[in-house]
Amino acid sequence: MLIVQKFGGTSVGDIERIRHVAKRCLATKNAGHDVAVVVSAMSGETNRLLEMSREFREDQNDREVDVIVSTGEQVTAGLLALAIRDLGGDAKSFLGHQVKILTDSSHARARIQSIDAEPLKACFKEGKIAVIAGFQGQDASGSITTLGRGGSDTTGVAIAAALGADHCEIYTDVEGIYTADPRIVPDASKIARICYEEMLDLASLGAKVLQLRAVEFGMNYNVPIHVRSTFSEAEGTWVMPAEDDMEEVVVSGIAAVRDEAKITIRDVPDSPGAAYRLFEPLSEAGICVDMIIQSQSRDGRTDMSFTVASGDHNRSIELLSTVCADLTGAGEFLASEAPVAKLSVVGVGMRSHSGVAGKMFRVLSEAEINIEMISTSEIKISVIIAEGRVDDAIVALHKAFDLHLPAPERSSI
Amino acid sequence: MLIVQKFGGTSVGDIERIRHVAKRCLATKNAGHDVAVVVSAMSGETNRLLEMSREFREDQNDREVDVIVSTGEQVTAGLLALAIRDLGGDAKSFLGHQVKILTDSSHARARIQSIDAEPLKACFKEGKIAVIAGFQGQDASGSITTLGRGGSDTTGVAIAAALGADHCEIYTDVEGIYTADPRIVPDASKIARICYEEMLDLASLGAKVLQLRAVEFGMNYNVPIHVRSTFSEAEGTWVMPAEDDMEEVVVSGIAAVRDEAKITIRDVPDSPGAAYRLFEPLSEAGICVDMIIQSQSRDGRTDMSFTVASGDHNRSIELLSTVCADLTGAGEFLASEAPVAKLSVVGVGMRSHSGVAGKMFRVLSEAEINIEMISTSEIKISVIIAEGRVDDAIVALHKAFDLHLPAPERSSI
Repeated sequence: MLIVQKFGGTSVGDIERIRHVAKRCLATKNAGHDVAVVVSAMSGETNRLLEMSREFREDQNDREVDVIVSTGEQVTAGLLALAIRDLGGDAKSFLGHQVKILTDSSHARARIQSIDAEPLKACFKEGKIAVIAGFQGQDASGSITTLGRGGSDTTGVAIAAALGADHCEIYTDVEGIYTADPRIVPDASKIARICYEEMLDLASLGAKVLQLRAVEFGMNYNVPIHVRSTFSEAEGTWVMPAEDDMEEVVVSGIAAVRDEAKITIRDVPDSPGAAYRLFEPLSEAGICVDMIIQSQSRDGRTDMSFTVASGDHNRSIELLSTVCADLTGAGEFLASEAPVAKLSVVGVGMRSHSGVAGKMFRVLSEAEINIEMISTSEIKISVIIAEGRVDDAIVALHKAFDLHLPAPERSSI
Repeated sequence: MLIVQKFGGTSVGDIERIRHVAKRCLATKNAGHDVAVVVSAMSGETNRLLEMSREFREDQNDREVDVIVSTGEQVTAGLLALAIRDLGGDAKSFLGHQVKILTDSSHARARIQSIDAEPLKACFKEGKIAVIAGFQGQDASGSITTLGRGGSDTTGVAIAAALGADHCEIYTDVEGIYTADPRIVPDASKIARICYEEMLDLASLGAKVLQLRAVEFGMNYNVPIHVRSTFSEAEGTWVMPAEDDMEEVVVSGIAAVRDEAKITIRDVPDSPGAAYRLFEPLSEAGICVDMIIQSQSRDGRTDMSFTVASGDHNRSIELLSTVCADLTGAGEFLASEAPVAKLSVVGVGMRSHSGVAGKMFRVLSEAEINIEMISTSEIKISVIIAEGRVDDAIVALHKAFDLHLPAPERSSI
């Protein structure tokens, strides 16, 4: 097989851990596989480099900041290649420009456009493990770019796609993706298999483990991703294409995004262009609007509610004040008093089960948790609730959907 | 003018010093010149990176060690470009591969073969200062190489040669090259101008200030090198082609190489191939033989003396024992008892003055310092003396040749 293995910052956090990673890579190689390894910077290193660059420039979206921070992965790649050779194996490191990881020019958040896998294939032919610096690429002009926090995941899956690898292993400091945050639900179970679409919807559960862009890449190029622990041999979570027997699992997991603010604008004229005029200034300011609900129109006017990250609340109100005064003639809009959270129940099996939403609303009602907004998709039901009640809601729903049990033992909805 | 400025590790040792360097670069640019800046790693950084790589590999002559250590200069280049922009200027960083600094594949001590100056010229056209990471290049296969300790000096002079720059300024933490080591001779004077050939012979005076390979590059491409302090505006030392009025200075400086060992082999057959058979094993072991003296042959046999670094003494004796037994039939050779030093008086003006050697020997004799070996070239007289007397010898010679006085005021020999 051809296997890509990606190791995060804590996995390569010091010399001893790098030695441990070298052993794992070598074990895979010695089992008869071709191995490409993608590495992050040693934990803390990217922050150290960013701190220095901040002495001269606050904005990270800068060609020279990328020159500086990309050295973290370069050092790890060289060290891991040395460590593998020190253990009797053979290895060669590759930087972004050496495997032509071509990206756009959006420094600090560049997107991969193409990769030249030939140097890696030549490396395999020489019987060597290829060690690739994650997180970095170069744009068409030859400037170094970086892919944003967690970007090494994307490098890993993109390299796997370019090589046509059998799968990509994402090694991290947890054992996989869980049905809920184990800090809130101690008996949350590890998800054995999950499809790309569900994983994208469970973003908040996986965000610390797996960069979303990597999941998109896996989905687009059909690369199975195995999220597992560097420090154990246990199977982790496979993120892969939906399969028939996956359908049996109605609900895969429960995720929450905290620290959101809800803004409601009343009496918006129910006319073409109103939504555009409202949200255009927010979009231009780079503010991400999450859930949007438009109520049934009454007397040609409607109410609109949406959520933004709490940090963007004041700026949103500011930007909206002018356009709202124009639109409503009064500028009468209300922000939510208390911070809210978005709670999502996700599962590809929902497509063929109508009872999930009903059960969810009943469980929340029994727990006396008020639902402020509702939004649904084919494989997800999201509700906005008071942030103070989100842990209670997760615990109640996790129990109600039997998520502490192995998938086959869960009761039907 | 087009000026190349090179700043060493102490000059860019922390954020404040990088800011100071940025000011100097910008001042040169604002005076109407095109400026290319070559930077070293922040002081201590190369050692930190080498220490990590030594955990897995002792030998520095390695592709992956170069991947690791080259990041030091990369970080400085990015930071200096940011610092220049922070002060209102404009700048762009370049790594070895981005200006195609092509070298051979001798990792840790690669030699520059060519440079593509076009990206730098384009940078000047945009009105920007070009900041180049020193010390690094790439070989024909695209692997990163480094040029050895002090290699950023060579990058500086090579970039100046490739650009056809007016001169190359080497900024360091001393004010220039002195007639003798100021720690030994407190009234040593700063040399205003010195020719490349003298500078090469004064290696031990300049070694901490200027890499020899950089002097060779300057000589081959006629690049005037201005060695000066980062922390003062004073003129430093110009290393440049010999000029007519330089001839007036008979002796430019006095240098010493300590910690040498003298080895004498007696009764070597005075036949073709003897020297080759003696020195070949040393050369193969990478041991650098310095001064070699062969005495007048007597009865078909001769004595040979030479010096090596003290650290190579035991290994040399070991390597020589077999070949000496064969050659002399007895293996009777003697190492010097006490460590020796090589003391050199250098000056391009010696070519037309016969009295320098005589005066040197008289001064040493008056100080009761025994001369063990003598070697001369057109512009240098070197003697081997006991290491314990080297400071006395330097002080006496410095005084005798009036080196504490400005060049025009010195008495003739």
